[in-house]
Amino acid sequence: MLPDNIVITSDIRHIFGKYLRDHSFSRIGVLVDENTRDYCLPVIRDLIEEALIIEIKSGEIHKNLDTCQEIWKQLTESYFDRQDLFINLGGGVIGDMGGFCAATYKRGIPFLNIPTTLLAQVDASVGGKLGIDFQGYKNHIGVFTKPDCIFIDPAFLETLPERQLRSGFAEVIKHALIADAAYWSNISRHPFSKQDWTSHIKHSVKVKNEIVRKDPKEKGLRKILNFGHTLGHAIESYFLSDPKISLLHGEAIAAGMIMESYLSHELLDLKTEELTAISQFILSVFNKIPLEEKDLEDILQLTMQDKKNEKGITNFSLLEKIGKATHNISVARSEMIAALSYYRSIK
Amino acid sequence: MLPDNIVITSDIRHIFGKYLRDHSFSRIGVLVDENTRDYCLPVIRDLIEEALIIEIKSGEIHKNLDTCQEIWKQLTESYFDRQDLFINLGGGVIGDMGGFCAATYKRGIPFLNIPTTLLAQVDASVGGKLGIDFQGYKNHIGVFTKPDCIFIDPAFLETLPERQLRSGFAEVIKHALIADAAYWSNISRHPFSKQDWTSHIKHSVKVKNEIVRKDPKEKGLRKILNFGHTLGHAIESYFLSDPKISLLHGEAIAAGMIMESYLSHELLDLKTEELTAISQFILSVFNKIPLEEKDLEDILQLTMQDKKNEKGITNFSLLEKIGKATHNISVARSEMIAALSYYRSIK
Repeated sequence: MLPDNIVITSDIRHIFGKYLRDHSFSRIGVLVDENTRDYCLPVIRDLIEEALIIEIKSGEIHKNLDTCQEIWKQLTESYFDRQDLFINLGGGVIGDMGGFCAATYKRGIPFLNIPTTLLAQVDASVGGKLGIDFQGYKNHIGVFTKPDCIFIDPAFLETLPERQLRSGFAEVIKHALIADAAYWSNISRHPFSKQDWTSHIKHSVKVKNEIVRKDPKEKGLRKILNFGHTLGHAIESYFLSDPKISLLHGEAIAAGMIMESYLSHELLDLKTEELTAISQFILSVFNKIPLEEKDLEDILQLTMQDKKNEKGITNFSLLEKIGKATHNISVARSEMIAALSYYRSIK
Repeated sequence: MLPDNIVITSDIRHIFGKYLRDHSFSRIGVLVDENTRDYCLPVIRDLIEEALIIEIKSGEIHKNLDTCQEIWKQLTESYFDRQDLFINLGGGVIGDMGGFCAATYKRGIPFLNIPTTLLAQVDASVGGKLGIDFQGYKNHIGVFTKPDCIFIDPAFLETLPERQLRSGFAEVIKHALIADAAYWSNISRHPFSKQDWTSHIKHSVKVKNEIVRKDPKEKGLRKILNFGHTLGHAIESYFLSDPKISLLHGEAIAAGMIMESYLSHELLDLKTEELTAISQFILSVFNKIPLEEKDLEDILQLTMQDKKNEKGITNFSLLEKIGKATHNISVARSEMIAALSYYRSIK
């Protein structure tokens, strides 16, 4: 069961319209980027005719303090207060950064997530992790604050480039791998083009919400949601500043899941055939990232800032088997290198 | 009764030393300014020999995002993680900004307040309001996050300039006025030089903690702690950018309390003799701020950003009588002007 404030709907206008009628906000702000302004905002624009539209540039590279200052400035100039509503209409960047801005403006004003990418619908919009990148580190500055509501309409995916859909699929795969072997079987039987997105959204939100409910501040259990993310985030951060390779979050996480499945096989009980099945399915969906020998050192260095680290040790969340994850597994440097090498070696 | 994590002690070395032994932090960071580095850090330095000392410049003018970035950068470069401890050693600026940095670095690491000014000991360190100034507005960006512990040692006040002690006294007066008529009688019987600071700290922390416990996120009751702060903050913000007049927080709040007592008299039931007693006692402690006719417009404009505002209305917390406050009193512009005029007119 999902809580009342997370709604998966095929009629966002109805749900959102009712929400606005049930409350009486004197001011509404909407954060969009150039894509959601064109493709998503028109769906709800007439319901919020007088809203302040704050537009930022799309892309992880803009998820920083400079953009936050621009958002806070616009809220200030329009005299937003704690009775007003802020809406994040977009993907993970919009949700993470807009939520962070709302949660810190005047020490927090109400905000609503309307995620429009698969990635945001199955992952980023749920669970209250907000933040921005800082000095090249992913989500380095942020808070845990849940939005007042999350309205998810799969129809928004029709406006999404296929590459973005693929990126979100990585988190769908992750939720199956860490918590539901049967669902993994279901997913991995079908090629990318035959996936059922509405079903995947429902499944992912249910899995994630259940884990977050038990451990909202990531003291323990919630860390399993980071499967694939320790090396994945490091790879994503590493290529963030590389103009030649533009990686999406899910693309980095897909590579991270292969590497961390390798670690699960080496350090825990993940079977060889499970490792092979995971690697082969992921590589049937995602292109391999061209990692070179010279990249490895910097990528390992980046794991030193992972938020799960304790007392200087890099901790991983790994798979005991498909459908069951565990956390706080410390991994030696040599093993991380082996994992990166495994990824580079597979065909 | 105070909760276990707020300790008022005459032996901070003992309490703090025990706390460090009871936990095992691999890294400790301490935020100081040039004053607390010289006068307060030596008291505990040998207990935290290997700590990272982060020094910032003292003063409200440095309580901004630039300084936060410097703090986050130093934490990052020393690989601080969620198992490490951050200590705010100083006054309100250190506590508000250091707390905000700790609460947002990697979405929050443990932090401890050791307030060293009277203002911080009786007010700022308790209650979890953290934040920084933004575009000239006080505490405009921030969060509600309580420190893990607060250790208060009145001995630190011996290092404090008298003007700083006076500034903190404003909040002591406020806590009596909003919640305890008997304590107000006790305070107002004695001149500034005869006040009992240890008693005042205990009283203020008890009053504030009790209110915050009932309403941590300032949905209602907690707003009474803002008595004197609606106009007081506006005056403080107004002079923040004026190089000729440097106002301390408590000096602005003292003026704000006189003005808002006037409003309490005009709009609620505060008696004439109570208004006179409050005004006279406050002016026996604090110099009058030289407000001029030309300042009024800008000061009123600044109240438009007050965090208690709702739907564009400036709400005040006022006194029904000495010892009892109420909140959400909307005040017309003409009445605010009258309050400023009253302050200017009293001898």
